[in-house]
Amino acid sequence: MTDPCEPGIQPRPAADLPTPLGQGNGPRRAEWSRGELRRDAASLAGMLGLTVDPAQCRGRFVADPHLLNTRGTLWGGCGLAAAIAFVQACGGRDCVWAHIQFLSPVQAGEEVELSVEAGTGGLSQAVVRATAAGRLVFLAGGTFSRVSGVVSRFGPAGDWAPDPDVCPAREYPTWLDFPRDGVISLVEQRWARPARTDLDGRPGGGSSALWLRLRPRFPLDAAVLALLGDFAPVGLIEATGHMAAGTSLDNSLRIVAPPTGEWVLLDVRVEAIVRNVAQVRGRMYDRTGALVATVSQTTLVHRVRPPSPASRDDQPAPAPTAG
Amino acid sequence: MTDPCEPGIQPRPAADLPTPLGQGNGPRRAEWSRGELRRDAASLAGMLGLTVDPAQCRGRFVADPHLLNTRGTLWGGCGLAAAIAFVQACGGRDCVWAHIQFLSPVQAGEEVELSVEAGTGGLSQAVVRATAAGRLVFLAGGTFSRVSGVVSRFGPAGDWAPDPDVCPAREYPTWLDFPRDGVISLVEQRWARPARTDLDGRPGGGSSALWLRLRPRFPLDAAVLALLGDFAPVGLIEATGHMAAGTSLDNSLRIVAPPTGEWVLLDVRVEAIVRNVAQVRGRMYDRTGALVATVSQTTLVHRVRPPSPASRDDQPAPAPTAG
Repeated sequence: MTDPCEPGIQPRPAADLPTPLGQGNGPRRAEWSRGELRRDAASLAGMLGLTVDPAQCRGRFVADPHLLNTRGTLWGGCGLAAAIAFVQACGGRDCVWAHIQFLSPVQAGEEVELSVEAGTGGLSQAVVRATAAGRLVFLAGGTFSRVSGVVSRFGPAGDWAPDPDVCPAREYPTWLDFPRDGVISLVEQRWARPARTDLDGRPGGGSSALWLRLRPRFPLDAAVLALLGDFAPVGLIEATGHMAAGTSLDNSLRIVAPPTGEWVLLDVRVEAIVRNVAQVRGRMYDRTGALVATVSQTTLVHRVRPPSPASRDDQPAPAPTAG
Repeated sequence: MTDPCEPGIQPRPAADLPTPLGQGNGPRRAEWSRGELRRDAASLAGMLGLTVDPAQCRGRFVADPHLLNTRGTLWGGCGLAAAIAFVQACGGRDCVWAHIQFLSPVQAGEEVELSVEAGTGGLSQAVVRATAAGRLVFLAGGTFSRVSGVVSRFGPAGDWAPDPDVCPAREYPTWLDFPRDGVISLVEQRWARPARTDLDGRPGGGSSALWLRLRPRFPLDAAVLALLGDFAPVGLIEATGHMAAGTSLDNSLRIVAPPTGEWVLLDVRVEAIVRNVAQVRGRMYDRTGALVATVSQTTLVHRVRPPSPASRDDQPAPAPTAG
């Protein structure tokens, strides 16, 4: 994040390019309130506080509170979003697909340094290394190319979903004690399929669907879809019959077309759970019902049980589903 | 591949571990006939000719003819299979998921050198770099951990598919002129859904399914599923209504459980095609109908039209769907 006295991410009409690093820039920590950041961000790069030196193909951002999951580490989808926005700020074109492997959690307040892996022959097939305090925290890769033309969609349309205006907001149980000022504070969530209420531990059918909308309103692109796609572990709740938390091991994103409008429907299918590992995939639709992307990930499953009545006032429960 | 006079890959009852590199091993090229190799291979590592130095976490294999796609470069799924087998030979445990990004084609006869990326903190979250003639050809990553326990499957079972014994073999049009001694010579293919015969260029429904069986019979594991999963671009034929070839940009594999038996059902869905880029996913089942893995990939689409009658005898057509 850039200096609060000098908001680094000015709205740019031509593109959502992050601000180039200035000379002698060291780590900069947010001093803005998150509310102010939300109001002022004009691009995802701005919301991430991403700064980029395109000449050196280097970038950085800080895992500020609004970028965290409910366990207080970087929301995985923010890592993939940052990698995509970074490659594009360095000159990469449209994201065709991208993947991220999480190697070490990024703690709150840590600065993440991004660089393009040498030897990949340009930005069309890019690999991004991300380090924090000298350790490798994630590796991301993808194809960046101008892709346009006729779109043939074979998957089912998302037109079965009720309009988000009439869908109920996702609510977290009051007994869950976790920070609510992270990424979940930036994203409106509404259940496109009714939320499961009988959390009795019996496996469900594996399907869940959420409408998602960023509170800061800027154009939806691949990086935004990366951030939103990491809500896929929400499907663990319906699948396991428990409040459940996910720790993503990786995220995969495949782009079909830019979405229309502000809302994105994330239609999740938990394919299988083996002990504490879930294989999850999803389709993303825009409000017209058009398929705009697909996602998949492998995630560790943490089942969260409500405290017993006697201890309910004393025992904070683990965090729920998070990227 | 090891020296033909000293078959390097002896059957090992305990595991499919590739043979450690000996002292002073330089590149070794196959002199076996492929038929002999097929007959003698007792593991996927043997079929790949993979040799590994676990102490140094280094390995190598040669893109011999039987490992090639129909365009004469390394079958992408062989790259992911080699990376998985390599990590496991270095001490990695069960593959939970794996992903490969293809950065440069591996030409026939090239030696591929594998190493584990430093700084990833062990083999449970491994990143494999692969180089050939000094250039980076692919990067693969994955989680390797002991995962066992109750398997909950939420995706549909594969029990709808006819038994492979009664399914018709996949046949390639006689007018297609391409090498048939690569990976397709190692794998039996039978259509579990009827093959589309009206290749008139009209888009299809996006769904295709193949039964697949390796001709060399050794236990099916994650590496074998990686090789077989790269048949997913077969779905382009039904989806496009053309004979179609795929050039994979990446492959993703998520493991549910080891398969039972020799046959694997690959149930493919082409999600979308944008100009010449397809987003493809698939589920893999064993013969009991149990979901054993999921795959996804982004692939370039090459539509192949039969030559006109006048030129049919003169013009070899491009190769069909290949990994």
